[in-house]
Formats: sequence, C-alpha cells, structure tokens
Amino acid sequence: MHNTSRSVNMVGSDTEEKASGMHPSFAGVILQRNRIKEKLAGIKNIIGIYSAKGGVGKTTVSVNLAVALAKMGHSVGLLDADIDCPNVPLFMGIEQKMDISGFPLKPIYIDGIKVASTAMIVDDAKKPIIWRGALIAKMLGDFFENTEWGELDYLVIDLPPGTSDAPLSIMQLLDIRGFVLVTTPARISAINSVRSGLMAQRLSKAILGVIENMAEGAKPSGNTEYVAKELGSEVLGSIKLDKRISDYQDNGKIPVMEDESIFNEFMEIAKRVA
Amino acid sequence: MHNTSRSVNMVGSDTEEKASGMHPSFAGVILQRNRIKEKLAGIKNIIGIYSAKGGVGKTTVSVNLAVALAKMGHSVGLLDADIDCPNVPLFMGIEQKMDISGFPLKPIYIDGIKVASTAMIVDDAKKPIIWRGALIAKMLGDFFENTEWGELDYLVIDLPPGTSDAPLSIMQLLDIRGFVLVTTPARISAINSVRSGLMAQRLSKAILGVIENMAEGAKPSGNTEYVAKELGSEVLGSIKLDKRISDYQDNGKIPVMEDESIFNEFMEIAKRVA
Repeated sequence: MHNTSRSVNMVGSDTEEKASGMHPSFAGVILQRNRIKEKLAGIKNIIGIYSAKGGVGKTTVSVNLAVALAKMGHSVGLLDADIDCPNVPLFMGIEQKMDISGFPLKPIYIDGIKVASTAMIVDDAKKPIIWRGALIAKMLGDFFENTEWGELDYLVIDLPPGTSDAPLSIMQLLDIRGFVLVTTPARISAINSVRSGLMAQRLSKAILGVIENMAEGAKPSGNTEYVAKELGSEVLGSIKLDKRISDYQDNGKIPVMEDESIFNEFMEIAKRVA
Repeated sequence: MHNTSRSVNMVGSDTEEKASGMHPSFAGVILQRNRIKEKLAGIKNIIGIYSAKGGVGKTTVSVNLAVALAKMGHSVGLLDADIDCPNVPLFMGIEQKMDISGFPLKPIYIDGIKVASTAMIVDDAKKPIIWRGALIAKMLGDFFENTEWGELDYLVIDLPPGTSDAPLSIMQLLDIRGFVLVTTPARISAINSVRSGLMAQRLSKAILGVIENMAEGAKPSGNTEYVAKELGSEVLGSIKLDKRISDYQDNGKIPVMEDESIFNEFMEIAKRVA
C-alpha cells in the first residue's frame, strides 16, 4: 500500500495493531467476520463507497454506480450500511420492507439489482436510531451475517460517514476489496477525502479511485487530482453538478435511468471500476 | 416538548430512560456532566448547530452565526465538537493550535469570537481519528471540562452528524439550551432533519428553529416548513445557494465578513436566535 507508513491519530496503535488492521474492541468479532466471509463467498467483489465527510454524494454514487454496473450485464447487490441516515430506499423510491420474521433476510430485487438497507429492517425508518457504537456494530454484524445475497459479481456498499465507530466496524467486519472515495470540487472536501483514504489504508483497504461529485466543469478539479495523488490512487471520473439529480432522487427516481448524459457519466465510472 | 410522545428506535428505552434523557452507557458521565456544568457556568446560552445528515452546512452556519452574534455586540464562543471532520479551523483560516501543555485549555480569540476545535488539540488534524465511541466520549468530556471559556453570552457548538455515539455523548455531556437544525431544500434532507429533531427532543432538548441552507429562492422551501411543523418549531431563515460561500471558506475567509448580502441573511437569523 502506498501510504501505510503515514501515522494516524489512534490510541493504542502500537499495541493493538495486527497485520490485518486494527484490533477489534469487542468480543466475537473475528469469529463473526469469518462467518460473514463464508456467507458472502458467492460475491466476487465487495466495493465500499466512502467519504469521512457527509453530504458529498455517497448514496448518489452508490445507487447509480450499482445500476450502471447492472446495465453492463453484471449481477449486482447494493447494501445500505448507514444506520443513522439510511437513504438508499428514499433515493430509489422503495417503500417495501425486508421480511424479518425469519433468517436468512432476503434483499429486495428492484431496477435490476438486489437491495438491502438498515432502513428496511426497522419499524419506522423516519425515526432516529439512537445507539452506542457497540450496539451498532452488533446490529451490522447480524445484518451482514444473515442477509442472503447469493451469487453476485459486485456488492456495492453505501458506507456511513466519519472515521470512527460505525464505518470502522464495517471495515473490520467485511472483506471489502477496495474503496471508491467520493469528494466535491471544494478544497475542504478534498482535505476530508484524504483523511477518508488514510483511514481505509490504515485498515489495509485499497483505494480503487476517487470520484468528483457536483463537478463544475467537464473535468475533475485540481483538488480531486490532489486527493488521488496523496493516496497513490487515481481519479475515476466526475459527475457534473445538476439540480435534476437531486430532483430525481427526491422523487425516488434513479438519475441514470432517467437521463442519458447522467447515464453516460456513470457508465464511464462503472467501466473503470469493473 | 411537542413530540415527546413519539417513540424512536432505541434498545432498552424503557429500562434505561431517565427523565433527563437516555441513561449514559459509560461510568462517570453524570459526575463529569456536573463538573462541566460548573465549568461552563459563565455561559448564558449554549446553542447546538445540528443535523443528522452531513454536508448540509452545519459548519457554515456555526461559523457565520457565531460571527453575526458577535457583531450584534454579544460575547461569543464557537466550539467545534466534530472529531471525525473538524472543519471550523479550515473554514476560518486558523492554523494556530491550542496549547495543550497544561490545563485549562484556552480557546483562540479571532475575528471577535473565541474558538476551540478538536482539530486544535491533535498533532495533525489532516490525519483521521479512528476511535471507538467510548474513547470519543472520554475525549470530548475531557475537552469540554478543561476548556476555559470565561463569561459568554453565547457558546455556539458545531455538532458532528449522525444520531448515534458522538452526537449522543455531546447531548448528554453538555447542558445545551436548544438546537438549531440545518437542512437543505431537498425532500430527502427534510426527512433526515425531522429525524435529527426527534433525536434532540428524545434527549429533552428544545428545537430553537430550522435554517434552510443552499436555498434556491428568497424564501425557504415547503420541505423546510414541513420540518419545522413536524417538530413543533419554526423556520429561522434561509441562506441562498451561493458558490462564493464555498469559495470564501476554501480560502479560510468568513462569508459574513466578506459579503453584505450574506451578512444580512445571517444577521436576520442571528436576531431570531438571540
């Protein structure tokens, strides 16, 4: 990995570290990780869509990239792993819940992809989930272990923001092949994106590349190039700032299925990811 | 409170709940809360700027509202309590660190306000802080307890996003007078804002009002009116979408100090908050 020699602000990093990443801070996680790995053995590539900063478009990228990969002919799953703001069902206009009366949980097949979201297994997704980190880790572990994805070419995961508890648990629990970072043209977003990438690399995860969302021009900004360079990675493409994307999503419609120019932008990125 | 009868998705809410909010899940927090309350006794109003969803403009509102309140003649402090993405120093162009060689910690006086940020007490704020929630709670508690604000009319707090560990700890540790919610005109942002408000109300915190950031017109959208109505609160005002705001902030300049129309928008809101 390019930047593993860079240190991070982490308590106990010398004593707690293992070759595979941070030592998990709760019992049973290693066993669970192995069980999850077995359950997800039919998935060829698990790809995390990530940014430490919120509001940059992780969910937009997750949904549209998943649909674009499916349109290329791949079998694709989309896992919404954000517990605090699980917005994938809203973005896709899905009101259906998963049947939680028995295991395994079955993702919902819609728009050519299999979708599972934490919002689909709670009684009212509009209410806040006010949980401590250990409980969130437990819930995520159980969710990952008991959802039946079957055979997939790609499982795209919409990660929660931050560098702490929830994304840390997900990075520890899932054998993620690599991360796609989402950023915006702003310099402040770029600084936070480097932080995101350093976290993923710290946990021995590869950075597949960086996507600029809300781009102002046809080409990614210098700030996004900076992020890719700092992380020894590359820019995968950019999505132009377009009010219609937000409008489609507010109405539960998927931009790549509605508009050809947005479709083309995501297909370019999907080809580079695949 | 308007909506306290509404339930939330929370494990152990029946057994763990107390009149003052959730039972803290780690030892010593009640004693620490009392010590913090004593230390912050010279502050007349503690106001939290909050949104469960990231990227809606919490930091923009925090910085500019704090400066606007100071321009009205109030003594103001600004506390950046986001550990994962502590962006206040970037937004204000502050490179100075706080002296952590001894207690109490002293906020930095700049642009007419006192500023403290978690980014000012770590060795390199650009590196990720990869911590479990209990450790974050400990760090925040120590930070709150040992920062000397003196006498203030207002302490504005820039909260982290989410409804779980870090914002929960802050809401439990600090005697916050009320919350200002930040949202955008998008329907999805509004749904997440209601979730934010329900969390604050669940912890017996008042909602002072809702601010629409990135507004498209001169008036707040119907979605923001919806948020205020759902929470039994009011719309405090709106900040028009303006590329210059992001550009100023990327260069460490404070929009209300640079532009009269932006200044006027924030002064309207500051008057309603004050």
